[in-house]
Amino acid sequence: MPPLADYRMRVRYYETDQMGIVHHSNYVRWMEEARIHALNEAGVSLRSMEAEGIQIPVTAVSCEYRKSARFDDAVRIEICPVRYNGVRMELAYRILREETGELLAECRSSHCFLDTRTGHPAGLKRRAPKYHRILEELFSNNDDKDG
Amino acid sequence: MPPLADYRMRVRYYETDQMGIVHHSNYVRWMEEARIHALNEAGVSLRSMEAEGIQIPVTAVSCEYRKSARFDDAVRIEICPVRYNGVRMELAYRILREETGELLAECRSSHCFLDTRTGHPAGLKRRAPKYHRILEELFSNNDDKDG
Amino acid sequence: MPPLADYRMRVRYYETDQMGIVHHSNYVRWMEEARIHALNEAGVSLRSMEAEGIQIPVTAVSCEYRKSARFDDAVRIEICPVRYNGVRMELAYRILREETGELLAECRSSHCFLDTRTGHPAGLKRRAPKYHRILEELFSNNDDKDG
Amino acid sequence: MPPLADYRMRVRYYETDQMGIVHHSNYVRWMEEARIHALNEAGVSLRSMEAEGIQIPVTAVSCEYRKSARFDDAVRIEICPVRYNGVRMELAYRILREETGELLAECRSSHCFLDTRTGHPAGLKRRAPKYHRILEELFSNNDDKDG
Repeated sequence: MPPLADYRMRVRYYETDQMGIVHHSNYVRWMEEARIHALNEAGVSLRSMEAEGIQIPVTAVSCEYRKSARFDDAVRIEICPVRYNGVRMELAYRILREETGELLAECRSSHCFLDTRTGHPAGLKRRAPKYHRILEELFSNNDDKDG
Repeated sequence: MPPLADYRMRVRYYETDQMGIVHHSNYVRWMEEARIHALNEAGVSLRSMEAEGIQIPVTAVSCEYRKSARFDDAVRIEICPVRYNGVRMELAYRILREETGELLAECRSSHCFLDTRTGHPAGLKRRAPKYHRILEELFSNNDDKDG
Repeated sequence: MPPLADYRMRVRYYETDQMGIVHHSNYVRWMEEARIHALNEAGVSLRSMEAEGIQIPVTAVSCEYRKSARFDDAVRIEICPVRYNGVRMELAYRILREETGELLAECRSSHCFLDTRTGHPAGLKRRAPKYHRILEELFSNNDDKDG
Repeated sequence: MPPLADYRMRVRYYETDQMGIVHHSNYVRWMEEARIHALNEAGVSLRSMEAEGIQIPVTAVSCEYRKSARFDDAVRIEICPVRYNGVRMELAYRILREETGELLAECRSSHCFLDTRTGHPAGLKRRAPKYHRILEELFSNNDDKDG
């Protein structure tokens, strides 16, 4: 199973603030863009899961900012699977300036799976076995990046 | 019937961009804040309408920017009812710097009413007569600000 | 001179609102993304112009919304030069759902050029002749899309 | 010295996403609104500090989401000073649904102080003694909420 796909984007003008750098809240949005892209590439489509009645809310998020991203910077986001147990999922992110390879931020996000109709936790093993198998394999290969 | 209530807010840091002024897209968000506030004060609650299965999407929006708003500016938004016919609604906005009274922007928004379930237009006269009466009176008093 | 380049993007999850569609304010941000991309492809880099002390604020914007964009939709934005006279510029946009070609929105934006240091209008002919020549040629070829 | 002032706001429509709840990235923006408000009430104005050439970028942020905030909810944000040493500052936040007192999220933010001109760390004790004294007193009274 290949690792999760990198996500590439270019900093948009409206993401800057009056310090002349990207406003820190946008990194949380970039994490979402990167996560949805990478899971989709691996065969886990958020659009399809939602159509099947499963939501994936964020239960926790953290970012450590190292260097500032600036308007028009090409940015690359690496995602590592950290933990998945059928009802919860955790991912780690490294946000890099493409041109120089500089580390801009290190981030984490935690998620659960909910049944849209009831609002209760949805165990993917029974509720969506196809996605469960993909996620189990994706997350089994992580070499303890969490340690 | 009193005119629509003014809306007051203070410019948030994350609304600025690297020109050191408020990013122009945020005025469209402020219009929404002001509109929801003013209609709510008049007895037309968007939260209640949505709970009753009616949505009010935006069908058109325009802004002419006169002066720049800046971080921490106190802003006042005046709203004028322009047109309402039971299925469509149009509003005009004047966005002002509170301290000086300077006009920052003049804006317009147009809206329709939709039935959430069917996605079709919802005539408020039958679908929500209580709100229809309030809107009819609110919009009857506008002295042709549109002319 | 080729027309302005199309801009392609995919609707991000955080751009949706609780109606399940893209929040209308985001179209104003997409216009900016498309405009900066297309002008850059034509040789007019906003990053470079700002580095040379010229800003391009938005003086007016308008959108007519035809159909709703939804999460994960592939979107294509066509830009037409409308008017340029050395101190002001106006552009028109057609925002389309890539898969079906459906028109989602028709938009306009107007801009001026400012000297960053003084805050006064900057005539590009003298201030930045290289960009002036490119813009003059780009906008001379528009076949009255404005009519 | 009184504790930091609570911040109150009402959830804006454009802050919701297609799950029908507030998009998680907005909590990071609310923290900023609350922090700027509370420090300002205590006599530490971000607007003034920036005018004096000092910036306060975010170096880390974290949120644990407990319950979902929804459109039009009245929200109260309590801020606790955690740590301040003249060059760095850390704050903790409890985001609550005003009506019920339910805890919506627990968050943290870390900051440094930079000299705008040089981009280097700015020790407030020398660079801005007035603000340093206020912050020292504000943060001295925290009863180890961090432990």
